[in-house]
Amino acid sequence: MKYSSIIIFILGIAISGYGQTENQTKMDSTKTERFERGWEKLKEIDGEAGVKVIESLKDISPDLGKYTIEYPFGDVYSREILDNRTKEIAVVAALTAMGNARPQLKVHINAALNVGVTEEELSEIMILMSVYAGFPSALNGTSALKEVLEERKVVE
Amino acid sequence: MKYSSIIIFILGIAISGYGQTENQTKMDSTKTERFERGWEKLKEIDGEAGVKVIESLKDISPDLGKYTIEYPFGDVYSREILDNRTKEIAVVAALTAMGNARPQLKVHINAALNVGVTEEELSEIMILMSVYAGFPSALNGTSALKEVLEERKVVE
Amino acid sequence: MKYSSIIIFILGIAISGYGQTENQTKMDSTKTERFERGWEKLKEIDGEAGVKVIESLKDISPDLGKYTIEYPFGDVYSREILDNRTKEIAVVAALTAMGNARPQLKVHINAALNVGVTEEELSEIMILMSVYAGFPSALNGTSALKEVLEERKVVE
Amino acid sequence: MKYSSIIIFILGIAISGYGQTENQTKMDSTKTERFERGWEKLKEIDGEAGVKVIESLKDISPDLGKYTIEYPFGDVYSREILDNRTKEIAVVAALTAMGNARPQLKVHINAALNVGVTEEELSEIMILMSVYAGFPSALNGTSALKEVLEERKVVE
Amino acid sequence: MKYSSIIIFILGIAISGYGQTENQTKMDSTKTERFERGWEKLKEIDGEAGVKVIESLKDISPDLGKYTIEYPFGDVYSREILDNRTKEIAVVAALTAMGNARPQLKVHINAALNVGVTEEELSEIMILMSVYAGFPSALNGTSALKEVLEERKVVE
Amino acid sequence: MKYSSIIIFILGIAISGYGQTENQTKMDSTKTERFERGWEKLKEIDGEAGVKVIESLKDISPDLGKYTIEYPFGDVYSREILDNRTKEIAVVAALTAMGNARPQLKVHINAALNVGVTEEELSEIMILMSVYAGFPSALNGTSALKEVLEERKVVE
Repeated sequence: MKYSSIIIFILGIAISGYGQTENQTKMDSTKTERFERGWEKLKEIDGEAGVKVIESLKDISPDLGKYTIEYPFGDVYSREILDNRTKEIAVVAALTAMGNARPQLKVHINAALNVGVTEEELSEIMILMSVYAGFPSALNGTSALKEVLEERKVVE
Repeated sequence: MKYSSIIIFILGIAISGYGQTENQTKMDSTKTERFERGWEKLKEIDGEAGVKVIESLKDISPDLGKYTIEYPFGDVYSREILDNRTKEIAVVAALTAMGNARPQLKVHINAALNVGVTEEELSEIMILMSVYAGFPSALNGTSALKEVLEERKVVE
Repeated sequence: MKYSSIIIFILGIAISGYGQTENQTKMDSTKTERFERGWEKLKEIDGEAGVKVIESLKDISPDLGKYTIEYPFGDVYSREILDNRTKEIAVVAALTAMGNARPQLKVHINAALNVGVTEEELSEIMILMSVYAGFPSALNGTSALKEVLEERKVVE
Repeated sequence: MKYSSIIIFILGIAISGYGQTENQTKMDSTKTERFERGWEKLKEIDGEAGVKVIESLKDISPDLGKYTIEYPFGDVYSREILDNRTKEIAVVAALTAMGNARPQLKVHINAALNVGVTEEELSEIMILMSVYAGFPSALNGTSALKEVLEERKVVE
Repeated sequence: MKYSSIIIFILGIAISGYGQTENQTKMDSTKTERFERGWEKLKEIDGEAGVKVIESLKDISPDLGKYTIEYPFGDVYSREILDNRTKEIAVVAALTAMGNARPQLKVHINAALNVGVTEEELSEIMILMSVYAGFPSALNGTSALKEVLEERKVVE
Repeated sequence: MKYSSIIIFILGIAISGYGQTENQTKMDSTKTERFERGWEKLKEIDGEAGVKVIESLKDISPDLGKYTIEYPFGDVYSREILDNRTKEIAVVAALTAMGNARPQLKVHINAALNVGVTEEELSEIMILMSVYAGFPSALNGTSALKEVLEERKVVE
């Protein structure tokens, strides 16, 4: 089963201590909490797509995987001043405007759909970005949206 | 009074036809509608700050002023799929992430406050952007927020 | 025939009123003119490549398709202060420097060739961009130029 | 004495709990360690300039201040695979290339000088960036270096 | 007289050999030609503004000054496939779109005016950039144009 | 043999004079030295990957190929204030942060490995960039690193 390999991976990080220094091992006892909250949040919002990102880091940079869970998800996404919908709208807008992070834009279009942002609202964000980041960003964002919608249809 | 000069400016554009070609004069009869809707929307959302942007273009590029009213405000901001609050959250996120448009970021922080986004929510967007565009963008966005809040206090 | 589907698409936008609000329907009577001028301009400059971009938006975001025709082509490209050659040189330079919009760069390299910019002049713009945006932008712009030239050979 | 106000600020964050949710208070017991390590690291590398950045956040976004100490300094800068010199060289190169974060570039030019990178080496990084991000980035980076060197002379 | 200090500066570079290694001294005999051609080109196109940029590098990074004369001006600007007008139009478009190099944008707006690009054409490039890089870039480019025009009036 | 075609290519540039003007032919006698030094440096640092970049320019833009050898390698990389390791660390950091030049990032990850930067150190640079350019840049940089490592395994 897929999740077993994830659990092994989590244990793997805890045990392997890859790239851990004296200084950093102090962190271990406290890591669990932020990490676990982050991991739950990542699964809640990004689902499979987020899990795959972390898995792809397993061999090459487990520490970046750990930090990705801890800071963006354990710290930032776990904050409750903005709801999940609002967060994803902000993030999709930003990644569309930046125009240089298509894989992450697709992950967050997925995440946005997962937390209740509609397809129509996502199109609308792209139209809005044509004003602030130009038509190429809006068109490339819309093409990313199209790809995500097609990929979700295949899975269903 | 200030608005009289704006009205003169609007008439000025209509009459002067600066840079208008044969082809473009066809547009004149239809311009009024999008332009007027855009002008109302700009005043509603951006208030004084938006009006100043347009005024600053009067001599140097009245056509860019016209387009700024027509496309971003007359067309895009007048759409109603996303409410004003959501639009401003998306725009503030995007401009913070891009990190190269501080004057416009400040206009839109103002606009966001005008349509009911709270100071706390704006701080939150900056924190969120630390994940996607890095801490420098988040810190510079927060400093823009600070400046806007101070400027608004002075005016009150 | 291909164009019939485009005509149906245009009618489709006019009729469907997808995402149209009370406010926006006022626009309908006046839309035709800018839209038609834009559509002619798009076909004149971008040819097939431009038409494909609009077609790809048909299902996912017809309104972005409409705006792409109206503002960039109906308004901006229809202006006559800069000739088509000069416009395309400016746009190819900008997209090469930005380095994050390869599909649009390729459309505009095609457009530049269509309006008489030579292959040699396009190479020259890329060399110029090595100074302002660095060698990676210049190299990636040149590789986009190479791809476009090869694609045009296949079609001929 | 200046540091007393910092201690008050740290306590202030711990007590105020500004923006803290149920969920986030779990973090409190573990915060201290990463935070303290980060705070020491920030003072070691960035000195006064870094402390000022955090202080400027006190009223507007104490949580961004906390995260800036915890993640960049407590987590990342505390890693020991790259030494401080190498880290600062990488960061100065990146901020020069990005070209949209002058305040942070100046903080890190200062930091680089603090950890033993020479003025000549910093000039050299700017020259290197002329190749990858273009001459404007290299020239603006060099002008930031010049400003920092002049500011340091005044302080001495 | 101002130019005497420039001549001393040029000699200074030739003599000082700041940062020159064994390897690089080989370059000395051949440097003169590209350097001189570049220096003439820089004065022809950028005039005073360009000279000031080089002078500002005298103490901090004479080698970046030398390279700025040699590669952008001695090599690239001396090419004759695009005329000066076309080169400046491309560069102003690119720097407007990038939006993170205002000092260089102003130098090149000046340069464009020096080689016969009109104020109206420069406004037009900014309008064109609203499509490709968004309205903030277009507005900030237009504000740079306005500043340059005002500075040139003061000098006259 | 592969190198023979490169030698023919070098001769080809020298002879063909593609795009050479009166003015530029003056350069010919002096070109050899910077070009040769650059060519040796490029082969030393970038190896096969660098040679391929130059070869890919042969037909489309031999002059960009020549400049790429002369300025980045003949001038900048031949400087000896920073050693090769330090240069590559700075360049990998910059290209990761910019996030819009993946082919060049991969060439320089290869180059970094060639001059003794370890896989672990490269991962570390990506982690560092998560702070300054955001997690998407760090994740995409790490994925480029992963690709390069896999490609190098296949070749061995």
